[in-house]
Amino acid sequence: MFTIIGERINMTRKKIREEIWARNADFVAREAQKQVKAGATHIDLNAGGDPSKEVGDMVWLTETVSQITELPFVFDSANPAALKEGLERCNRPGTIINSITGEQDRLERIVPLVQEYNTGVVALTMDDSGMPEDFEGRVTITRNLAKKLQDAGIALDRVYFDHLVRPASTNPGQAPHILDAIRTTRTEFPEAHIVLGLSNISFGVPRRNNLNRAFLAMLVAAGCDGMIIDPCEPGMMNTLVSARAVLGLDEYCMAYLTAYRGGKLE
Amino acid sequence: MFTIIGERINMTRKKIREEIWARNADFVAREAQKQVKAGATHIDLNAGGDPSKEVGDMVWLTETVSQITELPFVFDSANPAALKEGLERCNRPGTIINSITGEQDRLERIVPLVQEYNTGVVALTMDDSGMPEDFEGRVTITRNLAKKLQDAGIALDRVYFDHLVRPASTNPGQAPHILDAIRTTRTEFPEAHIVLGLSNISFGVPRRNNLNRAFLAMLVAAGCDGMIIDPCEPGMMNTLVSARAVLGLDEYCMAYLTAYRGGKLE
Repeated sequence: MFTIIGERINMTRKKIREEIWARNADFVAREAQKQVKAGATHIDLNAGGDPSKEVGDMVWLTETVSQITELPFVFDSANPAALKEGLERCNRPGTIINSITGEQDRLERIVPLVQEYNTGVVALTMDDSGMPEDFEGRVTITRNLAKKLQDAGIALDRVYFDHLVRPASTNPGQAPHILDAIRTTRTEFPEAHIVLGLSNISFGVPRRNNLNRAFLAMLVAAGCDGMIIDPCEPGMMNTLVSARAVLGLDEYCMAYLTAYRGGKLE
Repeated sequence: MFTIIGERINMTRKKIREEIWARNADFVAREAQKQVKAGATHIDLNAGGDPSKEVGDMVWLTETVSQITELPFVFDSANPAALKEGLERCNRPGTIINSITGEQDRLERIVPLVQEYNTGVVALTMDDSGMPEDFEGRVTITRNLAKKLQDAGIALDRVYFDHLVRPASTNPGQAPHILDAIRTTRTEFPEAHIVLGLSNISFGVPRRNNLNRAFLAMLVAAGCDGMIIDPCEPGMMNTLVSARAVLGLDEYCMAYLTAYRGGKLE
């Protein structure tokens, strides 16, 4: 199964933040339903609008969206209290904490929640020395994180590595390092999941969707088995089902043909 | 520079064949012009409608299309006489013979033309034992071809390796082998060109363009520096410029932004 984490409910976005602070449940319900309909397997909840309100906002989001869909949540915060209050209210099979990094302080605060609530966890490849640009740095952090998580009793089939991406417009030449790092992660840790919050690649360029689609196809070929995306963005699910058909991950193109017959393809 | 070989003028296609047999110069001119406008760097000429007419058809195509565009041709035939008659009439800088394979007979008949006319050459990774499905077979043929061509005095910067693709619908799981073979070819023979006639990937499935676009992005990431495509097919040039922007091959997305400002992006 391919994991599709729908990223639309994110309070770092101004429009979303305002609606959630207005406690507009209909708006949030529509945001969730759109993503479910588009094919999301998980709904990301990011309540990071204002640190002083984050716990309360996460509680409201969890209670509101859990009435709309039966999908598991991805609790998206670096604040252990916000994560805990969300998990207390909804911890369905498949629930994921987003995220840990190789930063020691963050590991110490969040790994206990992964253990206590037996969730999955997104592991970003950055650490106390920052976010590496190159292949070697990414792979070194991946290995360190894999060891620390396994030592903490967290099997790698609960881990979703995310090789953080910066914009192509400001960091050209970084994508080949990410693709190589994904291939190495897939080979060294075959049981781990590999995702990417890919849309940052196109930050600052017009018609961002063009870059997002091209990068998505490359990432699936490199070995990602999940993605943090807006599944409602035009062509994204189309590109995903097409890429899987090309790679033979969709044997004899059956899922592609099913999407076609269901009127879901361009 | 990325090589874009426009594949539309191909007499194995019924509609094209009929127009060419009717000596419809306007039709052929439009087919050429469309490809030039879309961004082709080379125009492929395939006169393979009827073996008994191929030489005459190639002569007519060469004379007709060479009046329309100044782009170099890719003479697409396994018939040395057709290739020679084309080359005699138009051998611009950048001209390519399409194709040799590892088949001994074909090598012996066509390599002398590559030498005599000092052209580039497409080298298909198949040999007398057939067309390999897997990575190992493709790489073995590539190495054998590289050696034979170099022994014949043909520098690898004149060679365009093409790791032949079969349809995903009938040969699932073949694309990862091709992508691996391209990466290995790029590493072992950095001076060689790598292209692919990619559209066969989508043979037999509806909305073929979806698979073509996804595969194109993967191929550029793997190391292709050229493609045999229909550049007029919707989204293909868009995917190409987007993929190159993602990979940093288009530094600071300048070519992408130029295409955007020129109204050439979706």
